Amino acid sequence: MKTTNATHQIQTIAQIQAVLANERSLGRSIGFVPTMGALHEGHLSLIEQARKDHDVVVVSIFVNPLQFGEGEDFETYPRDIHKDQETCQEAGVDYVFYPSVEEMYPDVASVELKVVQGVDVLCGKSRPGHFDGMATVVLKLFHIIQPDTAYFGQKDAQQVAVVKQMVKTLAVPVSIHACPTVRESDGLAKSSRNVYLTAEERKQAPMLYQSLLDVKPLALSGAQRDELISFVRDRISTISSGEIDYVDVLSYPKLEAEASLSGTIIIALAYQFSRARLIDHILIEV
Amino acid sequence: MKTTNATHQIQTIAQIQAVLANERSLGRSIGFVPTMGALHEGHLSLIEQARKDHDVVVVSIFVNPLQFGEGEDFETYPRDIHKDQETCQEAGVDYVFYPSVEEMYPDVASVELKVVQGVDVLCGKSRPGHFDGMATVVLKLFHIIQPDTAYFGQKDAQQVAVVKQMVKTLAVPVSIHACPTVRESDGLAKSSRNVYLTAEERKQAPMLYQSLLDVKPLALSGAQRDELISFVRDRISTISSGEIDYVDVLSYPKLEAEASLSGTIIIALAYQFSRARLIDHILIEV
Repeated sequence: MKTTNATHQIQTIAQIQAVLANERSLGRSIGFVPTMGALHEGHLSLIEQARKDHDVVVVSIFVNPLQFGEGEDFETYPRDIHKDQETCQEAGVDYVFYPSVEEMYPDVASVELKVVQGVDVLCGKSRPGHFDGMATVVLKLFHIIQPDTAYFGQKDAQQVAVVKQMVKTLAVPVSIHACPTVRESDGLAKSSRNVYLTAEERKQAPMLYQSLLDVKPLALSGAQRDELISFVRDRISTISSGEIDYVDVLSYPKLEAEASLSGTIIIALAYQFSRARLIDHILIEV
Repeated sequence: MKTTNATHQIQTIAQIQAVLANERSLGRSIGFVPTMGALHEGHLSLIEQARKDHDVVVVSIFVNPLQFGEGEDFETYPRDIHKDQETCQEAGVDYVFYPSVEEMYPDVASVELKVVQGVDVLCGKSRPGHFDGMATVVLKLFHIIQPDTAYFGQKDAQQVAVVKQMVKTLAVPVSIHACPTVRESDGLAKSSRNVYLTAEERKQAPMLYQSLLDVKPLALSGAQRDELISFVRDRISTISSGEIDYVDVLSYPKLEAEASLSGTIIIALAYQFSRARLIDHILIEV
């Protein structure tokens, strides 16, 4: 059923709705990969999974101003639409939807989405409003694309948790598929923000993931939350530049701090290098 | 294409989703009438319009706790599911969806909808949170039912405005059809809350609409906003029991108070009788 046509490049909501209504009327299922562009192997793994599961694959590329705070990198976030379009073409994407900010937000919003669970921790703590803005654009994109399944990188663990909980709370008719984090050969999680790293920082950055691998046996042996946090903090404080934003251990996907750990837990960290703020995590069953 | 089967009575989200997925797979279009039950001729006019426009008609009956404030009439809101089911059967409704509160809200909400436009006026002023709760349940019902068109009574003018604006902001793939207010022979707008009126109040209640009919020529002659408000207040202050909640004149559907009136305006009022709070309005082109 896979179409072998060239990738269609679409900029307006009306046009993507029209072509997808047509695909749907032909009985084709739709897999959707929402992105902010700067596509890397992590995104490609999502596209590949969507191609396996569905007849039609849609990738959106939209750097969403709502999810950037004051002083964050909205203006400088890496953008290269032509390279991304080529990447999508090579990956067999059927439709690239890349609306302008004016197309997505033509008017003052009449309603706002407020995420009230799992946001006062991890990245939500240092990025107030980030998940509200992310949830708003994801819900709007779901309404526009109406996919059967949407694919997200598990790397953004809190994003995945928030999207899954939103879909449950509002009964959004979309399945959420989280794909494993894709890593460089030295373990560094692939991220669009890795391009911000200096050469020296790039050398030291794999310690982030290494610290998570190292803490795993300790977590499995029944160590307390505080011990695990201290262990990871000690390990990554060996990085000579930048500073720790957070290290935390929480239940997953509810993201609650529980004294006694059981079930699925997330050990998560964020580290601020000179220009790149990187995140990583592992999920463990304890 | 209209099915002539008996009305199906459905209480779970999973079941209504399954039957409507089947209807959709047969190429049938869906008209949806969301209600809080206590069905009257106003609701019947919505059902009739939905039957005209679509192959399948779904009515939801759900008294939504989120849209009632402290001290409002959630507990005592008129409920008679058996009578409503019969009414739907007679009106040729295909599916009645009447979930429990636990079915609609099984968990603590992970996200909340906040209406930020057109809510600090009219009913929004005296019912804080009402439109947030209404918008949340309407969006969730839209996700569950996935109708082509949803039908609302124009009588709840602010509700219609909020729903239309929400659909626009979030690109919800549902058409909104507002049907004219249905009235008793003496002009009183049909409302589920009319049953709360005492015999004496029922006699005086038609003055609400009469005041709006009487102010119309004044509005068309170019009177100022304040004059129109005073005129209506004077007229309805002749009612011997109860008190005015508000009388206001705003642009429609943006619901903004503008000194110089032009375009479509709404002249709206709310009146508190001993147990019934009634609303009414007219729209005028000036």
